[in-house]
Amino acid sequence: MQIPVLGLRLLQTAMTRKTHIDENAARAAFENAIDTYEQDFGKFFLARLFGLELAYTADECVITFDLKDFMFNPQGGLHGGISAFVLDISMGHLLRQTSGPGATIEMKVQYLKAARSGRLTCTARFIRHGGSISFLRSELVDEHGEMIAYATSTWKSLKQHPHSAAKPT
Amino acid sequence: MQIPVLGLRLLQTAMTRKTHIDENAARAAFENAIDTYEQDFGKFFLARLFGLELAYTADECVITFDLKDFMFNPQGGLHGGISAFVLDISMGHLLRQTSGPGATIEMKVQYLKAARSGRLTCTARFIRHGGSISFLRSELVDEHGEMIAYATSTWKSLKQHPHSAAKPT
Amino acid sequence: MQIPVLGLRLLQTAMTRKTHIDENAARAAFENAIDTYEQDFGKFFLARLFGLELAYTADECVITFDLKDFMFNPQGGLHGGISAFVLDISMGHLLRQTSGPGATIEMKVQYLKAARSGRLTCTARFIRHGGSISFLRSELVDEHGEMIAYATSTWKSLKQHPHSAAKPT
Amino acid sequence: MQIPVLGLRLLQTAMTRKTHIDENAARAAFENAIDTYEQDFGKFFLARLFGLELAYTADECVITFDLKDFMFNPQGGLHGGISAFVLDISMGHLLRQTSGPGATIEMKVQYLKAARSGRLTCTARFIRHGGSISFLRSELVDEHGEMIAYATSTWKSLKQHPHSAAKPT
Repeated sequence: MQIPVLGLRLLQTAMTRKTHIDENAARAAFENAIDTYEQDFGKFFLARLFGLELAYTADECVITFDLKDFMFNPQGGLHGGISAFVLDISMGHLLRQTSGPGATIEMKVQYLKAARSGRLTCTARFIRHGGSISFLRSELVDEHGEMIAYATSTWKSLKQHPHSAAKPT
Repeated sequence: MQIPVLGLRLLQTAMTRKTHIDENAARAAFENAIDTYEQDFGKFFLARLFGLELAYTADECVITFDLKDFMFNPQGGLHGGISAFVLDISMGHLLRQTSGPGATIEMKVQYLKAARSGRLTCTARFIRHGGSISFLRSELVDEHGEMIAYATSTWKSLKQHPHSAAKPT
Repeated sequence: MQIPVLGLRLLQTAMTRKTHIDENAARAAFENAIDTYEQDFGKFFLARLFGLELAYTADECVITFDLKDFMFNPQGGLHGGISAFVLDISMGHLLRQTSGPGATIEMKVQYLKAARSGRLTCTARFIRHGGSISFLRSELVDEHGEMIAYATSTWKSLKQHPHSAAKPT
Repeated sequence: MQIPVLGLRLLQTAMTRKTHIDENAARAAFENAIDTYEQDFGKFFLARLFGLELAYTADECVITFDLKDFMFNPQGGLHGGISAFVLDISMGHLLRQTSGPGATIEMKVQYLKAARSGRLTCTARFIRHGGSISFLRSELVDEHGEMIAYATSTWKSLKQHPHSAAKPT
């Protein structure tokens, strides 16, 4: 049986994993991070590298960022570890904004759906805001409102550093 | 009361958070990643950026990497999201090495201790290796053998792509 | 130094942990369970023993029950394992009500507050209702609306048994 | 079409879920619990009801118990909530034995395999034993050494009650 040339080509395309990322986009992200980071909440190097934009409401921390393929796993979707990274930041920054810095005791992430393009939004809220131990949750959703990942975590508040108290976030 | 000059200086140092990372080290990590990555298991861009070196035994995946301060949180330790990222990779690569690629259903990380310098080792093992659903755990330890983080996760095996089967990992 | 009699008595009271449960209440719970259980969803023996009352809305399973001291830990509050048991049931029954029986792959419970008396309400909802894998969460709250425990879980749907499909829940 | 009598009978058997538990065994468990419990570690009512036998090594708490069908879910296996209950006790009692009572902050259980009969063994160990926050894990295995469930948890040590310090566990 003869295979039509076009069909074969399509098949080959489907079988070829993308082996390269958009290197210009990765470089732009890196240079922008180097130019604009400060090792403080909201603007530390990794947050800048992944293009995270943080905003706060009275009881939420909302992070938005554009997917770029340098953030991907070998299967071509946002790496689960990067989802975890963003979810962690959303909860840690909400705690910090509300009552000073804390340390993560534990975090669990459930992965609902792969994310391959577009702009993601991550929203953290308290389950319970305690004096010493706090419980938080966060949702990562895509542009269509579909949930990508869901996290819960537990934090221990740290005694606030006199210097950091004076600093704007 | 007079404050001795040296004492004041020490106090100021203690109160100053490091506001800059080693930018040359970050740039070297980026350039090395761009030069050596391939979007496949073990060598995708993010794995290269964080300098991850993967090795396998019969039933383990072992990742080693050097801490660099561009991986840090605003408090000056390895960011918990990056710990999660490395732990995730160790378990996903063990599954992939043993029975083909899978998707993370969920992962929980417990954070035991901050890591600030040196070389870390992350070792993944199966709790139970199933046909469809597998359960794994992984430990991240520092040079002194002290545990930094402990993770458990659940994975769903994916039908293997004909192309990826032929590819060396 | 002399200790006033009343003061000593109060001290002794404070130091005495309650060493007995209300045995009549425990026996009544047991006899009621034996009389009314059926090994099916909503009315299996353990659900009856702990006095669980299940109700459903379009997208929730709501369980209510009265705390009895036979459910307590040695510190005199609802045992965390029983909280986990009720949270598990709420999520499993919501899944069963919506799309047939499933098996728990994993569950995480965060413990926010001790519960010592009154009536508790446990409400389960879907995070994502999938064909094969579903993600759920559930909240256990006391009479004052204060959260006692928060759970998330992952379930695998089972092929439905022809017999159970015909049975009312 | 005629259905052979034997075939129909087998079909009916396969389709019939067991609707009754061994009520005598349940009653014996209840009466034994009432007779032997004390609301203290290792022997509180629920631990007795489920027939838990606790033992300690230098760094483990080992619980053994016989499966009885009153502990089952509607599908005829050990209820996941009871697995969680036993795993929780194993870790809480190890902490208590080592450094006094604590409260569970969170626990995650992964469910590997159904358990339908025989004697189960649950072994808790520390991941990290801290002064204030401790991390533990525990495994529930059946008679054949197959793992039923795997748990990790986080605990907060409580200030020890003067009375409980004097009491044997």
